[in-house]
Amino acid sequence: MPNTMPQNLRTPGPTPIPVDINEAMSDPMINHRGPEFGELIAKTTQQLKQVFMTKNDLYILTASGTGSLEAAIVNTLSPGDRVIAATAGAFGDRFVDMVEAYGADVKRMDFEWGSPMDPNEIRKVLMAEPEIKAVLVTHNETSTGVTHPVEEIAQVVKGEFDKLLLVDAVSSLGCIPLPVDAWDCDMVGTASQKGFMIPPGLSFISVSERAWEAQQTAKMPRFYFDLSMAKEYLATGQTPFTPNLSAMYGLSKALDVLLEEGMENVFGRHSAIAQFTRDHMKELGLELLVTDEKYASNTVTAVKIPDGVDNKALVGKMRTEHNVVLAGGQGRMSNDIFRIGHLGAVAKSDITDVVDALKIVLPQVGFKS
Amino acid sequence: MPNTMPQNLRTPGPTPIPVDINEAMSDPMINHRGPEFGELIAKTTQQLKQVFMTKNDLYILTASGTGSLEAAIVNTLSPGDRVIAATAGAFGDRFVDMVEAYGADVKRMDFEWGSPMDPNEIRKVLMAEPEIKAVLVTHNETSTGVTHPVEEIAQVVKGEFDKLLLVDAVSSLGCIPLPVDAWDCDMVGTASQKGFMIPPGLSFISVSERAWEAQQTAKMPRFYFDLSMAKEYLATGQTPFTPNLSAMYGLSKALDVLLEEGMENVFGRHSAIAQFTRDHMKELGLELLVTDEKYASNTVTAVKIPDGVDNKALVGKMRTEHNVVLAGGQGRMSNDIFRIGHLGAVAKSDITDVVDALKIVLPQVGFKS
Repeated sequence: MPNTMPQNLRTPGPTPIPVDINEAMSDPMINHRGPEFGELIAKTTQQLKQVFMTKNDLYILTASGTGSLEAAIVNTLSPGDRVIAATAGAFGDRFVDMVEAYGADVKRMDFEWGSPMDPNEIRKVLMAEPEIKAVLVTHNETSTGVTHPVEEIAQVVKGEFDKLLLVDAVSSLGCIPLPVDAWDCDMVGTASQKGFMIPPGLSFISVSERAWEAQQTAKMPRFYFDLSMAKEYLATGQTPFTPNLSAMYGLSKALDVLLEEGMENVFGRHSAIAQFTRDHMKELGLELLVTDEKYASNTVTAVKIPDGVDNKALVGKMRTEHNVVLAGGQGRMSNDIFRIGHLGAVAKSDITDVVDALKIVLPQVGFKS
Repeated sequence: MPNTMPQNLRTPGPTPIPVDINEAMSDPMINHRGPEFGELIAKTTQQLKQVFMTKNDLYILTASGTGSLEAAIVNTLSPGDRVIAATAGAFGDRFVDMVEAYGADVKRMDFEWGSPMDPNEIRKVLMAEPEIKAVLVTHNETSTGVTHPVEEIAQVVKGEFDKLLLVDAVSSLGCIPLPVDAWDCDMVGTASQKGFMIPPGLSFISVSERAWEAQQTAKMPRFYFDLSMAKEYLATGQTPFTPNLSAMYGLSKALDVLLEEGMENVFGRHSAIAQFTRDHMKELGLELLVTDEKYASNTVTAVKIPDGVDNKALVGKMRTEHNVVLAGGQGRMSNDIFRIGHLGAVAKSDITDVVDALKIVLPQVGFKS
């Protein structure tokens, strides 16, 4: 089967772009210091706040999702600040690396890959170390397919200890409920190429009043990710630096589509297709990495590589012979799992096609059901 | 005239996107950790090196042009390092602000807005202060339409004093000759929405051997703009963070187009249309900000607002009544000039349309020729 056929792109981002959104992105360039852009950024910012379920300030950054997380760190912290960075996967590890790179004094909390973070363990550390200023957590760990209990973590971090809470929501926001205000999250960062159904290149971040207060004294150096500049420019309908216009055209269209569908329906759709995916994997005789379905991600499912199966051959044959692009494992799980993305514009038929292809390929690469 | 007509976008970036490049950007998303992306980044990186005229390493970053300049700073310097930051405009000022934000000990050198930087003044400071580690300069100052003499500055900075040379080439590279290796520039940053004829959202940076040596001891904190991560990932055909794929599709097409035309021809085309623009402005009885044509930019021309003319009314009427989008002045020159961009995909007819509209609008806003 030639590779010129459309791929069934089942990575957990980038996700396929719907036709109408792709068309919107072809609109002509405009002056990013002119009135048309002022209208565009005002509209999209307002709509994004609805998706974030927040009245907090919100900024659109021209960067990958990691940029929004760097912004969360450098705008609230100073070198030497004691922080908890909890991790249970490759993206949790990245958040740890990032805050360490900027000189925080990091209490790293490792949880098992494939399992949820334990709010009670975080409580213990906060009780033992009152000098902790902030807690960094991942909402949806893309590398393992775990949705961590951020609501419960927030009840501890905010409700009991009143610390700053910085959340990596790159692969959850817009797909899995994360009501920023209801859960009292201070900084929440996400990216364009996941639930928003547009290409990579933009990231979004919400900033609480409390985070702005922290910004006043935060001494980590910052320029490109300095949100006080973003705030100043947004008041004039602009961004400090030339924004990714075509992605913003797509974003505007995508937000219209999402809000018309209604976020409850969008969340429900992701929940249904995730369940559909998990059920089918189990029917194939495969084992899921996440054993407790309560924490199984609604955007990406990690499937254990069965004994005797060659992971590279499996992912390779799926791509070259069936045009199904699966994601391999990441970091220490590179050889242990493959992952199926089911977020953004995805239909049940896309998952059924994956299942049909797996039925053919699995026996070819050593699987005995 | 309704605003639904295509605008004649004459800002110095973003620039209009040619149809074939726009079409390329609509290609479907791919796995940014898969083989198709490996081919795309290898091809575009190699082609960009031809445009930069360099054998140095070169990286594609998902960020505005400012991101590449922040990368130049944080990858070569440590807090407290003594540096020269020369400025003669809003973007020179930004480079100063950026390196100060990261804690360098900055010798700020101000040159007159609208005039070129003087290599001899830079020489004097380098002679007086041997502890200086790096010199930061702007190649083409977008806010004034001056192309600074980077070749002569490089002869001083590199040839005579062997210091690091960091160059802001955001609005010049790909339009105005900047042979990175011949001039021995250590770090050169530019952006996608100028001569490359694609939307904003990508920036490009070249890194000399000498810059890599500096990186070994550079202590400014960095993560998103850490080029050692970019180097490590590029060796595997990837980027550390999810790249702006649609802009990269457009870039690939644009580089094919530019290299087929030949960079000498591209430079000649920009030179011709810039001369055409300047000549027509003078014919209208307008005065140019840059009096010495040797330093007049081939990508943007700054025109003085004549006495008695209301700048806002001029730019406003040009846009709303003639669909010509001019750029106003920036920073301290907000009320003194307007600017005409003539870079990337621009035809002489685009400039003629500007001239025709100016002939109508100028008398309406108080101009007496």
